[in-house]
Formats: sequence, structure tokens, C-alpha cells
Amino acid sequence: MTDDAADRTQAEAALEEARRLLESGRVDDALTQLDALHPADQADVIAELEPEQRAPLLARMPQEALAQLLSYLDEEPRRSVVGELEASVLGPLLDAADRDVAVDVLHELSPERARATLASMRTAAEVAPLLPYADETAGGRMTSDFVALQREWTVDQALSYLRRTRPRAEQVFYLYVVDDQHRLEGVVSLRHLVVADASVRIGDLMTPEVVSVRTGEDQEEVARRVQRYNFVALPVVDEARRLLGVISVDDLMDVVEEEATEDMYRMVGLLENESLLRPAGRSVAPRLGWLLINLLTAFAAAAVVYAFEGTIERVAALAVFMPIIAGMGGNAGIQTITLVVRSLALGEVALQDVRHILQRELVIGITNGVAIGLLLGVLAFGWYQNAGLGVVAGVAMLLNMTTAVTAGVLVPLSLRALRLDPALASGVLVTTFTDVLGFFFFLGLATLMVERIA
Amino acid sequence: MTDDAADRTQAEAALEEARRLLESGRVDDALTQLDALHPADQADVIAELEPEQRAPLLARMPQEALAQLLSYLDEEPRRSVVGELEASVLGPLLDAADRDVAVDVLHELSPERARATLASMRTAAEVAPLLPYADETAGGRMTSDFVALQREWTVDQALSYLRRTRPRAEQVFYLYVVDDQHRLEGVVSLRHLVVADASVRIGDLMTPEVVSVRTGEDQEEVARRVQRYNFVALPVVDEARRLLGVISVDDLMDVVEEEATEDMYRMVGLLENESLLRPAGRSVAPRLGWLLINLLTAFAAAAVVYAFEGTIERVAALAVFMPIIAGMGGNAGIQTITLVVRSLALGEVALQDVRHILQRELVIGITNGVAIGLLLGVLAFGWYQNAGLGVVAGVAMLLNMTTAVTAGVLVPLSLRALRLDPALASGVLVTTFTDVLGFFFFLGLATLMVERIA
Repeated sequence: MTDDAADRTQAEAALEEARRLLESGRVDDALTQLDALHPADQADVIAELEPEQRAPLLARMPQEALAQLLSYLDEEPRRSVVGELEASVLGPLLDAADRDVAVDVLHELSPERARATLASMRTAAEVAPLLPYADETAGGRMTSDFVALQREWTVDQALSYLRRTRPRAEQVFYLYVVDDQHRLEGVVSLRHLVVADASVRIGDLMTPEVVSVRTGEDQEEVARRVQRYNFVALPVVDEARRLLGVISVDDLMDVVEEEATEDMYRMVGLLENESLLRPAGRSVAPRLGWLLINLLTAFAAAAVVYAFEGTIERVAALAVFMPIIAGMGGNAGIQTITLVVRSLALGEVALQDVRHILQRELVIGITNGVAIGLLLGVLAFGWYQNAGLGVVAGVAMLLNMTTAVTAGVLVPLSLRALRLDPALASGVLVTTFTDVLGFFFFLGLATLMVERIA
Repeated sequence: MTDDAADRTQAEAALEEARRLLESGRVDDALTQLDALHPADQADVIAELEPEQRAPLLARMPQEALAQLLSYLDEEPRRSVVGELEASVLGPLLDAADRDVAVDVLHELSPERARATLASMRTAAEVAPLLPYADETAGGRMTSDFVALQREWTVDQALSYLRRTRPRAEQVFYLYVVDDQHRLEGVVSLRHLVVADASVRIGDLMTPEVVSVRTGEDQEEVARRVQRYNFVALPVVDEARRLLGVISVDDLMDVVEEEATEDMYRMVGLLENESLLRPAGRSVAPRLGWLLINLLTAFAAAAVVYAFEGTIERVAALAVFMPIIAGMGGNAGIQTITLVVRSLALGEVALQDVRHILQRELVIGITNGVAIGLLLGVLAFGWYQNAGLGVVAGVAMLLNMTTAVTAGVLVPLSLRALRLDPALASGVLVTTFTDVLGFFFFLGLATLMVERIA
């Protein structure tokens, strides 16, 4: 299975085959087929089946495999798979699943069903404490499957403890050291434990300074920290520094990706859960809402043009240059805002850097504004043999480029200062500035000089 | 150090203090100060110091700390730190550094200096084979610090081997099993090894089906796979399935972030290495180039307006509605293109889904086009008491919204079909469509009906 292309085709073929078998009612054969796939691939097959095809398959899948599957299904298909399961099956199934997956599933159930399911779970005592945490926080992302050691233990005792308890935590890379109040005291990597002398005390082996996060911290901040320090897992503690859970890097990788998608979508007014895989009908209303906001801002620009309608009546050529001046400003502004929004998200800059950022972008905006303004002026003069028109177009272009970069810096930073997401609708705010002010500069100057250009 | 805010302030204070000490020439005190910080934080301090402040500090830093530092420095400051080091220091330093970091540093040196440095390295034999791989491939991301076991070994032998060799690989989570040709045969997690009976054979303990990647595979594809299967590391093999290296998830997290940034920047014509931290001067020329391309497309739109200048001379009110129709189309198009570009990048859709995607977006675009078109028609009629103007504006809006979503789907998919990056300049391509066709529909219809609206 080395070859990538071969890999893919093999998985796809297996998928096709499983579907064909199910359609001809050969559930056991389909199950065998499915069993050869990685759970991530199984999840794809399951997600694409119709509920009536899926039911007999799920009913006969071994519990362990079904529990594995749950952690790879996306939210939507998982919700429907869970909905098809009998209450008596779901409890034991969640016992077998990773705890953070069990928590996610319980969150998606109706309150009554969640209560009933939890009551039937053997691991209820371990899972219940995880339920109160909000989804996008460290607490909501953590799992309570971790190994805690005592500092007075020897390496040998710790290894026996591991052998005895056989922790199911899929990724025990780090073992955490806690005191008798379960407060986090240090960390030992499994690698260090394995190669250390049997008689060394854990307290002497551990790294005492552990970077940890609080339950309420935003998942994006947690991901940022893991990435900065190249950690593979991060312990989660409460206010008293008691160890409550662990977040592993593979979960945070999804966070990094989700947050990037969210920023991209928000900048252009898409909902963060918008997807090409969603039915079109569910996207019509949110997008219409966004377009109505845009229509409002477009009317602001139109109102400026309306104010100068008399000038346009005298010099129709102005209408030819309007889209150039507004459009170029918009493009320059969108560049700046994209850079600022992303740099804020990556933690490369912060609110207090506003002067530096503004200065930098103004240098670029004004330099290029002069260049493009001069070029446009010459082109306008050449096109219409009208020097006044050239001057007006060129100067308006420079002014609008300056507006563009200024708005591109100040809009996202103001949103951040207001504790809003800097990405939020920032694209349309900046182009509103460049449209409104672009038309104002251009048509205003043209009106002042109308005798020279008419 | 639990508290997040406290954490940050502490690091910042240490940073300030180190700088102050260096400025007053107390290098040893600064070194002590620095030593208390995590290498990621040390890297921040070092990056912000002037070369003349940095030199005495680097000269006195222990080699191990300096080697650690290298892996946390960004490319730019790392290049300058390395440039300040004596050739006799650099070789041993790279011996102490992670191998993938050593490779990155060697890649950044001049060919002569790279050759001389490599020749002076004790680990040259291990590092040299990594050098030929391109930066953004699996080979370029892998490290050769991994542990390979033989299948006939017992668990006890494997553990003794680990204790004897004390692998420095920071993250030995998985141990790979190879045959006598060094071909990858299986994988054993360190956790399983630790809890297994001493006499069990590795061959019986290992998982025989290992997902691996080839050296030449694109890093984005590798990251996608790691994320899909929730792996924490992935082995890299050659065509003969010989194990060459390992990529760990913390490196791939950077890949996920870089690729998202790249897409965002490319869509708006920013270079992928653009940064607010870069001097403004270096960004002027690339952005000017982009603006010149935009100017060209803006002139295409202007040419359409020019063709209808006669109509605008008769009905100046048309100029008022031009920005509304073009702008709304642009916004709708940008939404679709953002969604398509991101979904392609996430692997949620592929080229062959073009019909489904187009159909979905057309349903949304036409539905909302009818709604917004009707609203605009009514508003235009109300504003100017001119039914013809209302009809022309409304119909043009519907047509342009349809154009917008069509271009939003077809532009990125065409780029993908041409094996180009779907994000590449796709924003400006789509708004060119919506400007040019928006003006054409609106002014064209107005010209046809000019007697009714004049």
C-alpha cells in the first residue's frame, strides 16, 4: 500500500464493491469488505449509504469497530448513524469509544436521550465531567484518557503500573505527574521512561515546567500554543491546576484547518458551516441575507454617484473611469485586509502594532498609488485627449489607493478592538469605503474642474 | 505557569529583561535569563536582537541550546543567525540539531558553504541522503531520526535496543519494523511495546498494514492523509518501499496552516511569503505587478462602458446603478469562488463534481438573483419613477448574479483542470467577469430600451 495513487484506487474500489454487495443484500460479504478498510475509509462508505442499506450493516458490525467508526464520521452522518441505533446499543457503544467522541455524540442527542444514554453507560463517571465544557474550548476538545503518575514512584513502578492498567489512551506519548490533590506537577515522555534506569524516581526524571491550558481557553489559542512549542499533546487543568484532561495534536490539526476556513468564509460573508456538500436550499437564505447587506452598501456608493449626476450628464466619459478607480481601490484594500486578518489569526501581529502596520501599508499604498495614478492619468489623457480628465483620474486613484490600505488596516483592527472577529464581513466593509470614497474623490474633483474637462 | 495571561506576560517580561541586559553589556546575565525560557520564546528574543547584540550571546550559548534554538527560528532570522556563525562552529552545531533542521539550514547556505559544512559534520552520512528532496515534498519534510526494529526480535530485545541506543528522536511514538532490505513491514506503537510481554516477537505485535508516503509526494497531500487517519507520524519510503524517514504531525500542522495562508493570499494576488513583518520596500514591486494586471482587467470593464457612452449621455442615471449591479455580482461571485477554492483544497470536492457544484450554485445564484433583481427593480422605479429603468436594472442584476456563480464555479475548476492552483488570482478573474458582463447586460439592455427610459 505504499503507492499513493494505488492506495486511493484501492480504497475507492473497496467502496464501490461494498456498495454493490449491500445492494444485492449480501450484508456479510459487505462487512468483510468493509473490515479490510481503515475506519476513516469505512466512515466514507457508511456516510454515503442510504439509511435502509446502512441499518443491517450497523446491526452486525462488532462493537469495537463501530466505536472506532464513530470517531471518523463527520458530524452530519454521525448524527444520523447514532439516530438509527437502539438506546440499549448506544450506551455500551459509547463506553467503547474515545471519551471525547462520546462527549460529542452526547452533545448531539436530545437532552432526554442524552440523559438516558449516560445513565446506561459504564464509563458515565468519567464522561459526565467532560459534558459541561463548550465545544470550541480546551475543555470541549480534551479527553480524560490520560495516564497520571506519582512523583515518588520509581521508573519500574511506573512501567508496572502501565502494564497493569494497559491504558487505552491511543496516544500515550506523555505521562503526567500529579500530586495527591491531582495537581499537575510535571511531565515525563514515554520515551524517557523506557530508556531510564528502573530505580530512578519519576520526580527526578520529570520535566517540572509543564505548559498547560485552562479548560475555558479558546481552541484556536490552544492550537497556536501547540504549534509554537511543537508539542504533541497539551494537558488541560482547572483554576486549581488540577489535571482534567489532555488534548492531542491530531485534534488540533482539525482546529487549525477549521479556523482558517472560518476566516476565509467570514471575510466574504459565508456562514462557517457552508459547504458545497450541503443541499442548495439551506444556503439560499443566509446568502440572501448577506446580499441584502451588500445592497445597502452598494446604495451608499450609488448615492454618491447620484449626487454628482449633473457632472456625469455633462461629461459621460466619467462613467468610463468610475469602475477603474473604485475597482482598483477595492483590490488594493482586499489585499491589505487579507494580510491583516491572516496575520492577526496567526498571532504575528496584535492590536498594539497598529502604527507599524498602518505605516507599512501606507508606504506601499501611496508608492503604488502614485505609480498607478500616473499611469491612469496618462492613459486617460491619451484616450480622451483631455488633460483635465487625466489629472482628475490620476489624483482620485492615488487618494483611493490611500483610502484602501488605510481601511484595510483599520477595519479588521477595529473589529478586534471591539472584541469581534477581524474577519467578520471585513471584505464588504473595505470595498464600501473604496467605492464610496473612490466615487467621491473622482466625481468631486471632476465637478470642481468641470469647466476644464467638459 | 498555568494561567495563560500570566504565561504570556512572563515571557514578554523575560524578553524585555534580556534585551535590557544585553544593551548594558551583561551577556552572562542575559544568557541566564534566556536559559529560563522555552526555545520557542528564546527564538523570539534572538530574532528581534540586532546582529551586534546577538553575536556575543550566540558565541556563549551552549551548543545543545543553540541547536534547539535553530528548530524554532523562522527562516529569515535563522538564515541571519547561521550567517553569523563561524564555519568551524556550524558543522558540530548541525550535528546536534534535528536532522530535518540541519537539512533546511544546509539548503539555505551557498553551495560552497553547504559543501564545506557537510564535510565537517560527524552526521554527514545520515544528513546527506536527505538533501536532494524538494522542500514541499514528503522527502523534504521528513527526518531520518527514527527507530527501526527487526520482526524476529522479542519485546525484551527491542526495549534493550532502545535503552542501548537511546534514540534522540524527540517523538518516538511509533517504532517501525523493517526486513533485511530495510523495507517497511509494520509498525508498533511505543505504548504497545511497553505493555507487551517481554517474550512476544515484534512480528506478532506489529500492525502489518502501514500507511506510508513516497518521498516525492506533495506535503499538502501528506498532511491531508495524516489528518484523515488521525496519525501522529507517517513513515516515508522509496519506490522499493525502503524506509527512509518519518514525518511527524507537528511539522504537518505547519503545512496545514501554510497551505491555508497560501490559498488566501493567492486568491487576492498576494505572494505566499508576503508578511506584515517584512519591510514595506520588498512588497511594493510584487503588489504593483498585481495592480497592473488589475488595471488591465479594469480597462476591459471600462471599454464596455465606453461602448455605451452615448446611452449614458442620454440617461446619466445609468451611472448611478452601474456600481450596484457590478458590485453585487462581484460579491456573489467571490462567495462562490471562496467556497469552491476551499472545498477543493480540503479535498471535499474534485474536478468530476463540476456538474453537481454548478447546479447547486446556480440554484442559489438564480433564486437570490430573482429576489435581489426584483428588489432593485422596485427601488430603481421608486427612486426615478421610471419603470423602464427598473426593469433594465432588475433583469441585468439577475443575469449578472447568474454570471457570478457560474464564473465562481468554472474559474477555479478550470485552473485545476489546467493543473494550476485553483486559488491563483481567481478573485480578480471572477470580478472581471462580473464587471464586464454586468456592465454589458445593464448598459446593453438600457440601449435597447433607451426610448422607454430616457
